[in-house]
Amino acid sequence: MNPTLEIFSQGEEIVTGQTVDTNAAWLSQQAVACGFTVTRHTAVGDKLDDLIVLLQDIAQRADCCICTGGLGPTSDDLTAEAVARAFNLPLQFDAIAFEQISRFFVNRNRIMPASNRKQAMLPQGAELIKNDWGTAPGFSLHYGRCWFAFLPGVPMEMMNLFQESILPTLPTRFLLQPGQLVSIKTFGLGESVIQERIHSIEIPAEVQLGFRAGTDDVQTKLLFPFAYSQSAMTALVARLAEPLGDYVFAIEGLGETVGDLIFEIDKLMTARKHTLAIVETASHGLLAAKCIGLEWLLSASYQQATARLGTKIDTESLITAAKALAVDLQKAGGADYVLVQLYAGDNQTLHNKDQSIVVYNILLAGDTFQQATHSIAGPIKRKQNQAALLALDLLRRYLQDKAISD
Amino acid sequence: MNPTLEIFSQGEEIVTGQTVDTNAAWLSQQAVACGFTVTRHTAVGDKLDDLIVLLQDIAQRADCCICTGGLGPTSDDLTAEAVARAFNLPLQFDAIAFEQISRFFVNRNRIMPASNRKQAMLPQGAELIKNDWGTAPGFSLHYGRCWFAFLPGVPMEMMNLFQESILPTLPTRFLLQPGQLVSIKTFGLGESVIQERIHSIEIPAEVQLGFRAGTDDVQTKLLFPFAYSQSAMTALVARLAEPLGDYVFAIEGLGETVGDLIFEIDKLMTARKHTLAIVETASHGLLAAKCIGLEWLLSASYQQATARLGTKIDTESLITAAKALAVDLQKAGGADYVLVQLYAGDNQTLHNKDQSIVVYNILLAGDTFQQATHSIAGPIKRKQNQAALLALDLLRRYLQDKAISD
Repeated sequence: MNPTLEIFSQGEEIVTGQTVDTNAAWLSQQAVACGFTVTRHTAVGDKLDDLIVLLQDIAQRADCCICTGGLGPTSDDLTAEAVARAFNLPLQFDAIAFEQISRFFVNRNRIMPASNRKQAMLPQGAELIKNDWGTAPGFSLHYGRCWFAFLPGVPMEMMNLFQESILPTLPTRFLLQPGQLVSIKTFGLGESVIQERIHSIEIPAEVQLGFRAGTDDVQTKLLFPFAYSQSAMTALVARLAEPLGDYVFAIEGLGETVGDLIFEIDKLMTARKHTLAIVETASHGLLAAKCIGLEWLLSASYQQATARLGTKIDTESLITAAKALAVDLQKAGGADYVLVQLYAGDNQTLHNKDQSIVVYNILLAGDTFQQATHSIAGPIKRKQNQAALLALDLLRRYLQDKAISD
Repeated sequence: MNPTLEIFSQGEEIVTGQTVDTNAAWLSQQAVACGFTVTRHTAVGDKLDDLIVLLQDIAQRADCCICTGGLGPTSDDLTAEAVARAFNLPLQFDAIAFEQISRFFVNRNRIMPASNRKQAMLPQGAELIKNDWGTAPGFSLHYGRCWFAFLPGVPMEMMNLFQESILPTLPTRFLLQPGQLVSIKTFGLGESVIQERIHSIEIPAEVQLGFRAGTDDVQTKLLFPFAYSQSAMTALVARLAEPLGDYVFAIEGLGETVGDLIFEIDKLMTARKHTLAIVETASHGLLAAKCIGLEWLLSASYQQATARLGTKIDTESLITAAKALAVDLQKAGGADYVLVQLYAGDNQTLHNKDQSIVVYNILLAGDTFQQATHSIAGPIKRKQNQAALLALDLLRRYLQDKAISD
């Protein structure tokens, strides 16, 4: 029997619907992957009495509770006070917490407002959880049946604290028998197409099959029971990946460290020690933005005049123009690879979610061109993101092909 | 006193985090706008006992409850059965519901599976809510203190049913006096600094003050009661905005349509019919990416060599270099404004969340330079986003100043 876990989110912005509670979903996925049974999510606003009652209920009901929000410096941040009252654990000044909050301001050359001192007041006996990403430290404590961890509500801070400070301690606190999750990561195939392609493959009843369509990939997920045979697992994954072909850019959960599309490209580019220059149009800077901190990107540019080529000339001329641009850039810049993107459409087509643009991505490597043409529909930000990903995927396919043929 | 409302979501896919519960946020916004106080969101999985207990709790606790999910034909759709058991209202066959479900299949030339008959079984005394968008009819009933509405979990069906069948009936069931929400949107001040600045301003007890710190702005929110004097509202908002000075980029809820930072810049740039060219370093394409679809951005570029200036030369030389780049670009490109960003730091500083970079944004408009220098710490993606926003904010300040002085 798995230990039970509840998610508790605090904040008016959540109960009033100003913010969608993505924290709860993210934490639940993490908890399920660890071997918990997640039984409930609750969100309440900034009302002390509601918080107190809820904390007391959860202390009797669940084995573990992850709480987010309400740790800020302002008067509507009530979590620590609610915990203090719910469990009769008076707030005490924590010198280490205070030092960390102060350091946050010192590092940014800012003076700490007096209100931030409140964040160093923790319920008696609580264990501090360091926060390197913001001012709000987290804390944990055990009460009744339940071990509680309190994290800030800002998603980036919450995720970092969970991964650094909570996740590693869970196996010592709970008897966890997590299933083994394998994700086949693809880009360019829809969920229903994937389902069709793998339809005839038999999956044992004890293995759970699921899909997750994100903005940057579609993941085909297999959850194997704890202690499932490693070789049977590998064999089933291979059978499922086969009909998905080179749409698969990574398989997670079989040992190798894998990441998103850009992570996989970075591995390959770094291994080859090659460099890249790009010309963006429909992706409008987003392609470069996704490559921040990666040494192999030498240059990126967007020119409205270049983007507007797609309103003036036909498909064939667009491809010719893209190739010519790539050759020019190769001569000028000294990058090993040049990626040029043009698209057929105008600014109005880009904005209209019911109209498609046709994106031409051209990759010049040495003296050979790779080419991919795609039609992209939907809201402008989707078109932008898909245009960036399709360009990156062209590079990824080329690099993976090269890695195999070398 | 507003009537209270809770949101209750049913489904394993929500508690396990496979699906983000966007229904809850959407329904909450609707409810707040109607004049309810939303007190709680709860999500539970497909466990009958959990559902029963929760329904009984809510019947005592809230005036209204909107429930989503669990109305489908399969064995894990348990809502109607849970209601029947929780409130001792046996399930009864509803001929009108059955006729509607059957018609859904007839209209699509499909044969109704036997399992769908289950969806026509409603708790005794429940009122049917027609569903023209899917097979699952909703239903409503009053029990204890609470009026419950049960809707399908598929967002489109849920939204349509809510708007067509729930919303129009609410004013006859509840005394609703919706409040008026005003948001003062700032960039560049932390939540705690804002609180200090407005600390001495007296806020009437009936006005609720709150804060929302997002990645791209901080909002100071005021919720005024129903029928609050418009002039008193405007006056209080002005008093609060005053000490926040030109960190305020927009005020929402006083009539004018406002948006995020880029939306406000777009209004000003479009009104002036001016154009922009940018050189990015730390923001690495993200500045251009945020401007997608905006006609006034003529060009954007990232050059690794330019970014690396910050590893070689001192502050003063960096600013001189940025100004020289801006002048060159102005001469070459024909844009009315040129924005150049350089930063002190190297790739390692960018990656290290404990190290800061110093970002210099230079705006050249005509023959005058505007300049802003900021230290940015944190993870690489935060540095990138802040660098982009700080550059945009320099432009926004210049444009708003001009708009005032014109």
